[in-house]
Amino acid sequence: MKIAILGGTGEQGPGLALRWALAGEEIIIGSRSRERAEKVAAELNAELGESRIRGLENPQAAQEAELVVLTVPYPAHLSTLETVKSQLQGKIFVDVSVPLDPENPRRMKMPPEGSATEEAQAFLGPDTKVVAAFQNVSAHLLREPHHPIECDVLLCGNDAEAKRTVSGLVAKMGLQAYDVGPAESARVVEGLTSLLIRLNIRHKVKGSGIRLTGLPR
Amino acid sequence: MKIAILGGTGEQGPGLALRWALAGEEIIIGSRSRERAEKVAAELNAELGESRIRGLENPQAAQEAELVVLTVPYPAHLSTLETVKSQLQGKIFVDVSVPLDPENPRRMKMPPEGSATEEAQAFLGPDTKVVAAFQNVSAHLLREPHHPIECDVLLCGNDAEAKRTVSGLVAKMGLQAYDVGPAESARVVEGLTSLLIRLNIRHKVKGSGIRLTGLPR
Repeated sequence: MKIAILGGTGEQGPGLALRWALAGEEIIIGSRSRERAEKVAAELNAELGESRIRGLENPQAAQEAELVVLTVPYPAHLSTLETVKSQLQGKIFVDVSVPLDPENPRRMKMPPEGSATEEAQAFLGPDTKVVAAFQNVSAHLLREPHHPIECDVLLCGNDAEAKRTVSGLVAKMGLQAYDVGPAESARVVEGLTSLLIRLNIRHKVKGSGIRLTGLPR
Repeated sequence: MKIAILGGTGEQGPGLALRWALAGEEIIIGSRSRERAEKVAAELNAELGESRIRGLENPQAAQEAELVVLTVPYPAHLSTLETVKSQLQGKIFVDVSVPLDPENPRRMKMPPEGSATEEAQAFLGPDTKVVAAFQNVSAHLLREPHHPIECDVLLCGNDAEAKRTVSGLVAKMGLQAYDVGPAESARVVEGLTSLLIRLNIRHKVKGSGIRLTGLPR
């Protein structure tokens, strides 16, 4: 599948790009700057030893891809969506954003819609299938593509089929996804990230995560 | 330690009572009806094979105990707190309540304070140390005291020492507690329960839970 990762030069983008590229997907790194996107794509291809990742500006990346992922820091969430709204119509859009309080990342500062996921769905409209995913996965661990990650991926969204598609892409990375309900469930899943940041700080680690138990794997 | 479990005749109370009694704690089951509390206490003592559990009305139970736990269904949260407010002053109060939407337990219906934990802290005042705990632990698994539980206990509250005390009591049950921050963090931890209920329904199980990963155990 052709996957664009908007804001793909930031914290979580390169790890997602590498892991999907290793699983055989075709990746486009999106950025506000094409030059920056191309530079990061070249670095990742060098790491891969083959050329599976390209760099483009966000709107072109979103246009070319079948499925689009957003990994910008939350203050750029809505402003980035504004630049790609038309390109996302009819597509699955995977939102990784977490509305952390800019003054204290151990707290949330939720948008009026309740969560970043609900904000995105409201802004993009019903023809874009928004699926929230990966918010709880440590960027640090994600970036080391051969390091196993002990963290499940909780999927939220209003379209069951879109969640099944994303679940398959999560599995290709060697992770387990669970459908935890509609977009509204993202209030909890996004919020969990601030608790994990808090635990990382308290225990001086970089990769706390969560596993669901008592369920089929 | 002398522990009262208010609403202890309901879903989670008997499991907590049995597990703590087995660990050597002295337990008082509280209920609106003393008769009902005594009946459940007698049943649990029969199961234990010794008499470590008594039954009392909620206010007397709260009065006698050093630490008080509340496990009533959320619609009885505030009305029960009203009956024991003076008895809880100066004590640690462990709130297990989850504000599920009465019309759909897969959704939350949070009080204006943000969570049941914050509501309790606001109502009881600063001289009661409110600690949220056990919301994500399956009542079904808790009730089988020799069945190991694969679920961590996330502690929220504004008093670090009170959380350390509760952490010790969690450990006595063979579970692992993690301090995930102030009372406000309970918005996430309580919310997680609705996602676990959703997963239980979807996967036809009774005991889904969560484990934190990447942290010292």
